[in-house]
Amino acid sequence: MKELKGIIAPVPTPFNDNEELALDELGRNLERWSQTKLSGFVLLGSTGEFVYLTTDEKKAVFQKAREVVPSDRIMLAGTGSESTRETISLTRWAGELGVDFAMVVTPAYYKKAMKPEILRAHYIEVAEKSPIPIVLYNVPIFTMLNMDAELAMELASHPNIIGIKDSSGNFLQLQEMCRLAPEGFSVLTGSASLLLASLTVGAAGGILAAANVAFDLCVDLKEAFEKGDLARARQLQNRLVPINKAVTVDYGIGGQKALLDRMGFYGGPPRSPLRRPSADIVEELVRVHTEACTEEVSHK
Amino acid sequence: MKELKGIIAPVPTPFNDNEELALDELGRNLERWSQTKLSGFVLLGSTGEFVYLTTDEKKAVFQKAREVVPSDRIMLAGTGSESTRETISLTRWAGELGVDFAMVVTPAYYKKAMKPEILRAHYIEVAEKSPIPIVLYNVPIFTMLNMDAELAMELASHPNIIGIKDSSGNFLQLQEMCRLAPEGFSVLTGSASLLLASLTVGAAGGILAAANVAFDLCVDLKEAFEKGDLARARQLQNRLVPINKAVTVDYGIGGQKALLDRMGFYGGPPRSPLRRPSADIVEELVRVHTEACTEEVSHK
Amino acid sequence: MKELKGIIAPVPTPFNDNEELALDELGRNLERWSQTKLSGFVLLGSTGEFVYLTTDEKKAVFQKAREVVPSDRIMLAGTGSESTRETISLTRWAGELGVDFAMVVTPAYYKKAMKPEILRAHYIEVAEKSPIPIVLYNVPIFTMLNMDAELAMELASHPNIIGIKDSSGNFLQLQEMCRLAPEGFSVLTGSASLLLASLTVGAAGGILAAANVAFDLCVDLKEAFEKGDLARARQLQNRLVPINKAVTVDYGIGGQKALLDRMGFYGGPPRSPLRRPSADIVEELVRVHTEACTEEVSHK
Amino acid sequence: MKELKGIIAPVPTPFNDNEELALDELGRNLERWSQTKLSGFVLLGSTGEFVYLTTDEKKAVFQKAREVVPSDRIMLAGTGSESTRETISLTRWAGELGVDFAMVVTPAYYKKAMKPEILRAHYIEVAEKSPIPIVLYNVPIFTMLNMDAELAMELASHPNIIGIKDSSGNFLQLQEMCRLAPEGFSVLTGSASLLLASLTVGAAGGILAAANVAFDLCVDLKEAFEKGDLARARQLQNRLVPINKAVTVDYGIGGQKALLDRMGFYGGPPRSPLRRPSADIVEELVRVHTEACTEEVSHK
Repeated sequence: MKELKGIIAPVPTPFNDNEELALDELGRNLERWSQTKLSGFVLLGSTGEFVYLTTDEKKAVFQKAREVVPSDRIMLAGTGSESTRETISLTRWAGELGVDFAMVVTPAYYKKAMKPEILRAHYIEVAEKSPIPIVLYNVPIFTMLNMDAELAMELASHPNIIGIKDSSGNFLQLQEMCRLAPEGFSVLTGSASLLLASLTVGAAGGILAAANVAFDLCVDLKEAFEKGDLARARQLQNRLVPINKAVTVDYGIGGQKALLDRMGFYGGPPRSPLRRPSADIVEELVRVHTEACTEEVSHK
Repeated sequence: MKELKGIIAPVPTPFNDNEELALDELGRNLERWSQTKLSGFVLLGSTGEFVYLTTDEKKAVFQKAREVVPSDRIMLAGTGSESTRETISLTRWAGELGVDFAMVVTPAYYKKAMKPEILRAHYIEVAEKSPIPIVLYNVPIFTMLNMDAELAMELASHPNIIGIKDSSGNFLQLQEMCRLAPEGFSVLTGSASLLLASLTVGAAGGILAAANVAFDLCVDLKEAFEKGDLARARQLQNRLVPINKAVTVDYGIGGQKALLDRMGFYGGPPRSPLRRPSADIVEELVRVHTEACTEEVSHK
Repeated sequence: MKELKGIIAPVPTPFNDNEELALDELGRNLERWSQTKLSGFVLLGSTGEFVYLTTDEKKAVFQKAREVVPSDRIMLAGTGSESTRETISLTRWAGELGVDFAMVVTPAYYKKAMKPEILRAHYIEVAEKSPIPIVLYNVPIFTMLNMDAELAMELASHPNIIGIKDSSGNFLQLQEMCRLAPEGFSVLTGSASLLLASLTVGAAGGILAAANVAFDLCVDLKEAFEKGDLARARQLQNRLVPINKAVTVDYGIGGQKALLDRMGFYGGPPRSPLRRPSADIVEELVRVHTEACTEEVSHK
Repeated sequence: MKELKGIIAPVPTPFNDNEELALDELGRNLERWSQTKLSGFVLLGSTGEFVYLTTDEKKAVFQKAREVVPSDRIMLAGTGSESTRETISLTRWAGELGVDFAMVVTPAYYKKAMKPEILRAHYIEVAEKSPIPIVLYNVPIFTMLNMDAELAMELASHPNIIGIKDSSGNFLQLQEMCRLAPEGFSVLTGSASLLLASLTVGAAGGILAAANVAFDLCVDLKEAFEKGDLARARQLQNRLVPINKAVTVDYGIGGQKALLDRMGFYGGPPRSPLRRPSADIVEELVRVHTEACTEEVSHK
């Protein structure tokens, strides 16, 4: 089994102008990202617009990616669905395809009903029936439901649950997960702005939307930290904050895709109701990205 | 076109013990509910576990219901999905089937991106392409996204958007919608506990989970109000509050289904991760239901 | 003991241009309000800027008001403080002065510590040591702490706690308090926009910031409701909503004082950091107030 | 002017069994804390129960502390009040007394009115009229109002505003303040559980309730970090988390005072409505404190 660590990119799902899947473009993008020092890829995370795809489309995405992603990189498939049965079905399919890990988002529509024991039973059943290890995916900014450190650590004791992507943005919670995690359980931050702090308290890496567009910056930060060069790591973190904010909070998936178009990747449109950004916003994104990725610019 | 008003039941979707669709049971339930004074039915609202069904299963549910629901009752189909394309596709299908109205929940996964102009464009596109009138469905307790009175009223000016189910629980917001709604636009409360107050400020009725199990109580309240018997209406409202709380907040869909089993309907299990309630809870539900539906019990 | 009911005005506290107490102006305002059909007055509620006054200033306000408020009106004194000892001390002083009721806001700074049993003990001790009856004051918009129906009803069983002003804006909670309140315990809404709905479910009246400037409108609504003229009451409620929003949510205490100045009362400035509104806002307030209080304007 | 940095203790205010100020006990406590490596003290922060003291009592506390705190330690006085006039008055008094810095909490009762421009004007006026430098105090857990990095940085440009205690618990916000702060402006965390991460991103230190009882642990962590021993710093942070949680979130001021009693300081009771903890809780606190402060105990 591969080790779940490093800087991982949760890549967008390309569509053509009719909002149909553009699988060839996905393949070309992945080839290009595979030439960077990224440790791996998530297909159909939140940035991958997983909620907008049918089951058949999801399978096509995983299949295409499995053909392209090199074996020395980690490949995760976002297989979480609202129902346990659909989650199991898709996870099994991905496992048979040869995906390394299934990343399973918390079911969340019936929030009040999703008590810890309900979530625990859901994840345990999925883990039991999955041929590949499960990575928990906690993303309350979208699900509006938080998996706390206590539940995550209970699940961490299951042999087929081997990590968590915590995108809560709650640093104390991530720190608590790092403090309590058993040997072999990887805590990854989902917030590029928390990367340095997360590494400091013991995170194994990050699954970072910003890594789709600022891969070198993310990897450099991690390497600076590992070399013990905190001053350099802090400087890189300061450069990472604005570009991360731009492609997540401020301009979202549409913005990120437009920026990828400008970087020579295929971005294309998001699916409706999401939209492409205005031309002004694209220029702003390019400006922020250039500033973040340019060494000479003086940063505090 | 039918008028959207009265007490409407958002019925549960029956599954057998393997969590497969139980369409015959759905048919029998609808036949029985059709013998009450309920004004109509929603298929695949939140109580109908719509997030757990595949598109094919949704179509099967609509088809079965269309065969059974009498023509003098309103039939609404929950066709809202995260993507605009899927929403349109399912809405068209339901329209061709002869459903009266499509009830379209707000897309909500990418909350920060779902700004008013995005939601407006989504609903306008759906309304333009739908053969049947659209009913807005605002249910922030699940979506964690609120459609406020301002946006609802903008959409209300579209000729093919003819009502809203506001399940926000925010009475001031519902009152504001009633105050500002154009002629012919129906505001329905989604909270049985707000029924009397909602009627007082001009609501056309309610789509009430509690009406699945306490149909007569809901209808009696509405009739008492219409006769001007406020004291009686208040007494009935006081009886409705505890049973409504029990089948929504406290024990959810699993509880409601178990209570239906005890009432001679088919309840069955919800889909996982939702669960059946414990035997104790079922007894408590039966007790609360009996007390609510028994006239002799003295209520304040 | 007077009965706690009707429309009660939580009057502002006048300051001169140096932000010093303007007691004579307070007296003249109260004389004028006493010529309306208002049932009574609260001195030093939230609208009275109680958090900005020293203990000595509070006593001066109560004393001046006691001299002016006629004996056929209810007089409430806002005596709640963060500490139990200060609350008791001021409540005793107000009781000896001959105030009818003490309105006691929930202590709230240490929110997590203010568990129900802590609040209960606080209120019980205050009620035991107070020579006059206590009115609970729940205003989470400012305290960010809610007293729920369960705790309010526990306290309602104490013989010296005779009512609650619920300014939560949570209509379901107010309805629950009305449903469960013992004989002789008055539930008053603190939200003018909820007045009609609150009366419908059994509230005894309201303590309404809007009543400072739209006293006749509030009283007319209550009288229309009591005569059973729901259509008229609904029309008045629709007129009350915008002026209430203007003097509370939109333009606050500074706005309300500026409007009072234009109505021939003394408004004056609030204490810093609160501010007077701009001239534009004052004109807008006058416009909204005029529209609300003018019968001829057609309202839905 | 002293430099605002290091580990600073926001000491509790001692009361006797009648809840009267116990100034001699305060003096003795401060003498003892002054024998540690703590950098300084805050009198009448939130842990100091400042909301329960009269103005005269506050002055007595500052005076006693000024007599006892050695000149090589930083002394801060919590002088923030709801009104601007009271804040200025008390800040001037503290400045004349020879206190080093005034720590000024955000006024917060009228939350919606406390817009950035209102807060800015408040702080600028206080800073202009204060003889000593101002430290901003952001503690949304109590005020339920957040001063964001943008407003803090605007205020940071004023020559008499020299730092902020950010107790938001929002690490991203603190990091943003560190990233943007001008030379000479000190960002201090108010959360002991964030100490290591905060130092990593450039904080000057912390004002930490946990430092009242775990002073050596806090200082050791800071020294390990400064020596570049991240592994040791992380181990100390892991030990600090549970004791910090115990004396803040779990058992509050009453708990902290009881623990101080057991450590040979004077703790005594908090003022009502706050309470002493039960005997069980005191034992638990002693256990957690001992475990945190004992080197031999193996920590991950």
